[in-house]
Amino acid sequence: MSKIGFIGLGKMGAAMATNLIKAGHELTVYNRSPEKAEPLVKLGATRVERPDQVVQSGGVVMTMLTDDKALDEISWGEHGFGPNLGPGVHVSHSTIGPDTARRLAERHREQGGHYVACPVFGKPEAAEAAKLWIATSGGVDAKRRIASLLVALGQGSYDFGTDEGAAHVVKLAGNFMFAAAIEAMGEAFTLAQQNGVERQQIYKMFSETLFNCPAYKAYGSMIASEHYQPVGAPPALIRKDVRLVQELALSSNVPMPLANLIQDRLTSTIARGDQDIDWCGFAREISRSAGL
Amino acid sequence: MSKIGFIGLGKMGAAMATNLIKAGHELTVYNRSPEKAEPLVKLGATRVERPDQVVQSGGVVMTMLTDDKALDEISWGEHGFGPNLGPGVHVSHSTIGPDTARRLAERHREQGGHYVACPVFGKPEAAEAAKLWIATSGGVDAKRRIASLLVALGQGSYDFGTDEGAAHVVKLAGNFMFAAAIEAMGEAFTLAQQNGVERQQIYKMFSETLFNCPAYKAYGSMIASEHYQPVGAPPALIRKDVRLVQELALSSNVPMPLANLIQDRLTSTIARGDQDIDWCGFAREISRSAGL
Amino acid sequence: MSKIGFIGLGKMGAAMATNLIKAGHELTVYNRSPEKAEPLVKLGATRVERPDQVVQSGGVVMTMLTDDKALDEISWGEHGFGPNLGPGVHVSHSTIGPDTARRLAERHREQGGHYVACPVFGKPEAAEAAKLWIATSGGVDAKRRIASLLVALGQGSYDFGTDEGAAHVVKLAGNFMFAAAIEAMGEAFTLAQQNGVERQQIYKMFSETLFNCPAYKAYGSMIASEHYQPVGAPPALIRKDVRLVQELALSSNVPMPLANLIQDRLTSTIARGDQDIDWCGFAREISRSAGL
Amino acid sequence: MSKIGFIGLGKMGAAMATNLIKAGHELTVYNRSPEKAEPLVKLGATRVERPDQVVQSGGVVMTMLTDDKALDEISWGEHGFGPNLGPGVHVSHSTIGPDTARRLAERHREQGGHYVACPVFGKPEAAEAAKLWIATSGGVDAKRRIASLLVALGQGSYDFGTDEGAAHVVKLAGNFMFAAAIEAMGEAFTLAQQNGVERQQIYKMFSETLFNCPAYKAYGSMIASEHYQPVGAPPALIRKDVRLVQELALSSNVPMPLANLIQDRLTSTIARGDQDIDWCGFAREISRSAGL
Repeated sequence: MSKIGFIGLGKMGAAMATNLIKAGHELTVYNRSPEKAEPLVKLGATRVERPDQVVQSGGVVMTMLTDDKALDEISWGEHGFGPNLGPGVHVSHSTIGPDTARRLAERHREQGGHYVACPVFGKPEAAEAAKLWIATSGGVDAKRRIASLLVALGQGSYDFGTDEGAAHVVKLAGNFMFAAAIEAMGEAFTLAQQNGVERQQIYKMFSETLFNCPAYKAYGSMIASEHYQPVGAPPALIRKDVRLVQELALSSNVPMPLANLIQDRLTSTIARGDQDIDWCGFAREISRSAGL
Repeated sequence: MSKIGFIGLGKMGAAMATNLIKAGHELTVYNRSPEKAEPLVKLGATRVERPDQVVQSGGVVMTMLTDDKALDEISWGEHGFGPNLGPGVHVSHSTIGPDTARRLAERHREQGGHYVACPVFGKPEAAEAAKLWIATSGGVDAKRRIASLLVALGQGSYDFGTDEGAAHVVKLAGNFMFAAAIEAMGEAFTLAQQNGVERQQIYKMFSETLFNCPAYKAYGSMIASEHYQPVGAPPALIRKDVRLVQELALSSNVPMPLANLIQDRLTSTIARGDQDIDWCGFAREISRSAGL
Repeated sequence: MSKIGFIGLGKMGAAMATNLIKAGHELTVYNRSPEKAEPLVKLGATRVERPDQVVQSGGVVMTMLTDDKALDEISWGEHGFGPNLGPGVHVSHSTIGPDTARRLAERHREQGGHYVACPVFGKPEAAEAAKLWIATSGGVDAKRRIASLLVALGQGSYDFGTDEGAAHVVKLAGNFMFAAAIEAMGEAFTLAQQNGVERQQIYKMFSETLFNCPAYKAYGSMIASEHYQPVGAPPALIRKDVRLVQELALSSNVPMPLANLIQDRLTSTIARGDQDIDWCGFAREISRSAGL
Repeated sequence: MSKIGFIGLGKMGAAMATNLIKAGHELTVYNRSPEKAEPLVKLGATRVERPDQVVQSGGVVMTMLTDDKALDEISWGEHGFGPNLGPGVHVSHSTIGPDTARRLAERHREQGGHYVACPVFGKPEAAEAAKLWIATSGGVDAKRRIASLLVALGQGSYDFGTDEGAAHVVKLAGNFMFAAAIEAMGEAFTLAQQNGVERQQIYKMFSETLFNCPAYKAYGSMIASEHYQPVGAPPALIRKDVRLVQELALSSNVPMPLANLIQDRLTSTIARGDQDIDWCGFAREISRSAGL
């Protein structure tokens, strides 16, 4: 079992850290709002005051933060853990742009360290149940070193080579595909409803047959019932992800009209004040556009 | 076992008729191009020269035709089977608009007959393997009468009540959802490819985890490899379906921007001369728009 | 001065007929709701009870109707004027699909007659002021014969050759361009408004400089003020036009994503119950999508 | 007549500086590639080696640069003119985001200086002919001080108040409206072409009647002929502008689907290698999508 520094105890991070402790790992945790560390401390984790205290040179740090900027600051800002980590491994679970990852990897490399991209797929419930799916990329040895840690978090992992940006590309593409499934169900169910078929009925058939997969089940039930609770992730958080998708698409010259449509839905959702619903509630915009 | 008239022996219809014979039913078949009936005749089917010869008053006719117009003509045009059917049951498998179905139902009703909407989901391979999924709607007694026939065709059926248009709405919504999945994969895989991730790799991960369902597997492999063969259905055929979706959306006041996007992709595919590929090859337009 | 039969006395038709009378032409008029003919009768027009009474063999009929179906019926339905017209000229002002025009032209031709496509551009006010712009197409001799009549209606005409469908294509393309200008202003003004610039101010600059043309002035003032009265044409009427655009685009394999966007806006406008505003009020959907 | 520092001698800047000299102003010029200053030096301008040499404290500097970053560096980077300007006036002609403008304004203010937003509308030819239209915003006194300079550049100016960001918002909205006109013409002309009407003919009618304004004439002729030369501005430059539009739309919660469509067109244009055509050549993508 390993000693791990863990930074970022939001819904996802807290669930992941809990599973690491349960699996026998020894955790030192940091979170900007310290009270979120309480439950983990009760389970045996050590709480520290500053990010640079979570790790000693050559150790392992896992991070699960909101966005590129937050990860940059926690790593290399004031009291960032980066300098302390030295030749250790930074296991990065956040949803960020691949260029940020490549830049961070370079800085770790400069002091003999490693960055392993390990973004995760799954809602907070999946994180709690250790049912996440993980995409990885980065240096071969570093990935080998941390492989056993990932076992505590999920059902399995898929590797995408040595480019530290690659797994983050996969994560962004995957979030886009989730969003596309939401848009598809939203349009399809609204069409059905306005033509005499109940939303729940059509959802039942498709989710049991042709679309009987986690992505459609994770959101379809909310879209069918139009009850967008509980909040796995709010619209503003995912709009950040889709913005990363759009920026990546722009920089690599890939027109993505469906990503644009989804971003506009999220923007409308936020503009109308629907901020405290699950992000799949952008399907409500489809109903509204049909006068419902 | 029953006597059934079967009209429409394209890829889908031929496979379905074959399974009915194998299940012990006695088939009288009609197809505009008579040579397509040959294999069925070898299996014991009776071939007739005109659609009105497939059935006797009070019997059962199954139809699997290209579009609303073809079904209209086969039913009530010159030598249509409608008048002969009388108080029998018309089991309608074609992908058509719900209003056509309601109109046909009304005409059958006028002479004591019944229309049961039974559109099917699945590619020709699924039809051959008797693995279709079926949506049904129509009169309760008529559905009960033909229930055992459907067993020979697929894995199961879902009922959508007594409105003869309802199951057709479900079918159109489902085809739209397939198309949406294709667009989503096309954009996602192209984004991945242009950012250093192989199309096949990202497809493998998603189709084994979050999107491990028939819809994504049916098309994802072609989209990952960009090899759009064999042709399950050509672009022009599905464009007809999406047009039905758009017309239904217009008449019921449901804006469907994703359906529009898909239709434009299919149109470009046809305009460029890519007519002999599977319809999911509209994903090629995404690659092209990225300069690939 | 000529004897003319005139059919269709809506806002546009009534204004056009009035100008023809003022120019000295002798009009025989028909309208489904006969009371709309009153003002013209006062100016000297003769009102008849049936469309086939407006013209004698070899004469001239002008039509200004709602859609393809209405024009079809008035021409060749029960009591249609077509058979009576014989070798005369049908001057067709309605906004219809080019294929309908070509079909009607063929029928007139069969009895020695002619169809001249003469769709008009302009709001009802422009029609009253005889400031319409006219696109024409059709047989050379027929166009020559009716040229002087058009002088009474507008500021000038542009000819598009002998294909009777051509001028209708131009009309549909033009209406699409109007709609595009509305969408553009709606998005631009809303962006300005949400970033500290008044809608009226930005409209003033653009309509006096780079966009100082009738199309932008006709709708921009309403969009700037968000007061969508008076109703030149309601959303439902123009949605019919955009549908013709979409059908033409589909049949000629031209993807038109902007036309689709506009149609979705019009659909939302109707779905929300905004039916009694000018059609450019679809710009309200843009404000709504921004939470305004 | 005034002493003016002028920075940025691209096509637009060089034409503007020339007109200022012709109007009798005394110019000190700086450009990163010094050879571009040659023609101005011949007309009497003084060339300097560094941006901070163009102005003395309390003077006037005009800037016409590629983007926000370039303007930031020229103003406050190494050898930036900002510190030297002191209580002078920065007349900013570049197309930049309003937040950049507000930030620059704040820095000038800190040392008693002023920022006047003066983005210009017009192609290089219009700049040469002193026919630009100018939007202004900023402090009242500063605007009064530089008003006479603007006379040498264009046909007139419109003021948008004291917020230094406002005029830049107007400029971005205007560029978006140009782009929308291009998309509209591209779709309309292609629809016409595929239905038997020549692109040139339909362009002629509309540009002489309903759309007889500079925006449509500036680009319509190229779109009609599909000859996208000369290059007023290349696709990559305007993609930068549309990106500013999209970022502004995102930050102010205004969905702009038409802006997204345009950006995708520009991206495809670049992805296919069409980089040396005028940006309105993104209309070529419309033709391509129709198989032309």
